[in-house]
Amino acid sequence: MGSDAGLILLSGGLDSATAAAVAIRESSSCHAITFRYGQRHLVELEFARRLVSFFGIKEHIIVDIPVDIFGRTALNPLSGIDIPRKREPDLDRSIPDTYVPARNTLFLAYALAFAESRGIRAIYIGVNSIDYSGYPDCRPEYIAAFERMANLGTRAGVEGRAFSIRAPLISMRKSEIIKLGTELGVDYSLTHSCYDPGEDASSCGECDSCRLRRKGFMDAGIADPTRYAK
Amino acid sequence: MGSDAGLILLSGGLDSATAAAVAIRESSSCHAITFRYGQRHLVELEFARRLVSFFGIKEHIIVDIPVDIFGRTALNPLSGIDIPRKREPDLDRSIPDTYVPARNTLFLAYALAFAESRGIRAIYIGVNSIDYSGYPDCRPEYIAAFERMANLGTRAGVEGRAFSIRAPLISMRKSEIIKLGTELGVDYSLTHSCYDPGEDASSCGECDSCRLRRKGFMDAGIADPTRYAK
Repeated sequence: MGSDAGLILLSGGLDSATAAAVAIRESSSCHAITFRYGQRHLVELEFARRLVSFFGIKEHIIVDIPVDIFGRTALNPLSGIDIPRKREPDLDRSIPDTYVPARNTLFLAYALAFAESRGIRAIYIGVNSIDYSGYPDCRPEYIAAFERMANLGTRAGVEGRAFSIRAPLISMRKSEIIKLGTELGVDYSLTHSCYDPGEDASSCGECDSCRLRRKGFMDAGIADPTRYAK
Repeated sequence: MGSDAGLILLSGGLDSATAAAVAIRESSSCHAITFRYGQRHLVELEFARRLVSFFGIKEHIIVDIPVDIFGRTALNPLSGIDIPRKREPDLDRSIPDTYVPARNTLFLAYALAFAESRGIRAIYIGVNSIDYSGYPDCRPEYIAAFERMANLGTRAGVEGRAFSIRAPLISMRKSEIIKLGTELGVDYSLTHSCYDPGEDASSCGECDSCRLRRKGFMDAGIADPTRYAK
């Protein structure tokens, strides 16, 4: 462990898998943190576990967050809100119902506590502000503000062992992310993107996340290993 | 509920009880959030419950945080680290072993998610940077940075329903806090400060928290209802 170790927020999706590959390239050792918060696509946890094994990540913790913290979001199957389908996230810049209140702030806060307690200074998150759903907590100005806050609010930060919140994909197109991951050897069949998967873990093909993923592989000219229902 | 409601981070201590009294004065209705994170002074949860009842707070949630997130801190009885005793927090400005990595960031992140999901915009926290133990996440610059980050990273923030992180005690002396709370009718016998209480919930009298509390009552010229072991 120590100052060259990295911590990756790993959801089991395409972006976090690619960010993990970057983290592994840049770190002496890697840790991962995954969150269970009542999401509809809980199957992503199984993909996160497969990625941990694929990458040989040394420590992986899964944190439970009570679902009622986040209130009504389409990602909670008990909310009664449907997953938006056939949106055009490229054109429609409103924040969709899949938004989860302060999700990345809570995830990064857990990562920060975990990192400081283990002497880790680099935290990797696979957020993207180009081919994305318009979530405010995926934008560069948010990540910079979190990093600043983190360094004012921690012992390590004020004592000069500053944290860096690394979002290596933040300005990349989805196709560029897929090309980068492919170069770094990511096996995308071990990743999962769909917000509303079938019982057999197949992808719906119609939610924002499926649409962005499918288009990304197409634009990259790389075969998409995903099973889409539609 | 709505825009005039407030959310208070309630630990069961003297400061958060006083901040709660301020929140109640300023809000149309109040919610409270308390954290169980393996702290030695878990008895504070019982005090938090009594305060909820005393103040007539309408909703109170208790969130569990896995203790291994925070790693080694003297507040975790399994850490093997003793609670520092007979320190002079006024004179010794180093950060003591009772520091918990990124604690207020994690607590405020939970509060932010909870508040946004319920349409609450005012979050109250009883931090203090005068008579305190030197924790970096109790300082005004940290609170301001958290608020800024919160408003960049949430739907409510970017859509103009800004959050305000209110730390009404941040620049007050402990004696001033006690005077304010007394004016607002706080029953301090329902609060608990000790980091290392006895099995009968008595206070040790020697940890930073006991020393600051005892001196605060003395300086305020108000009778201290606390039972100290020493």
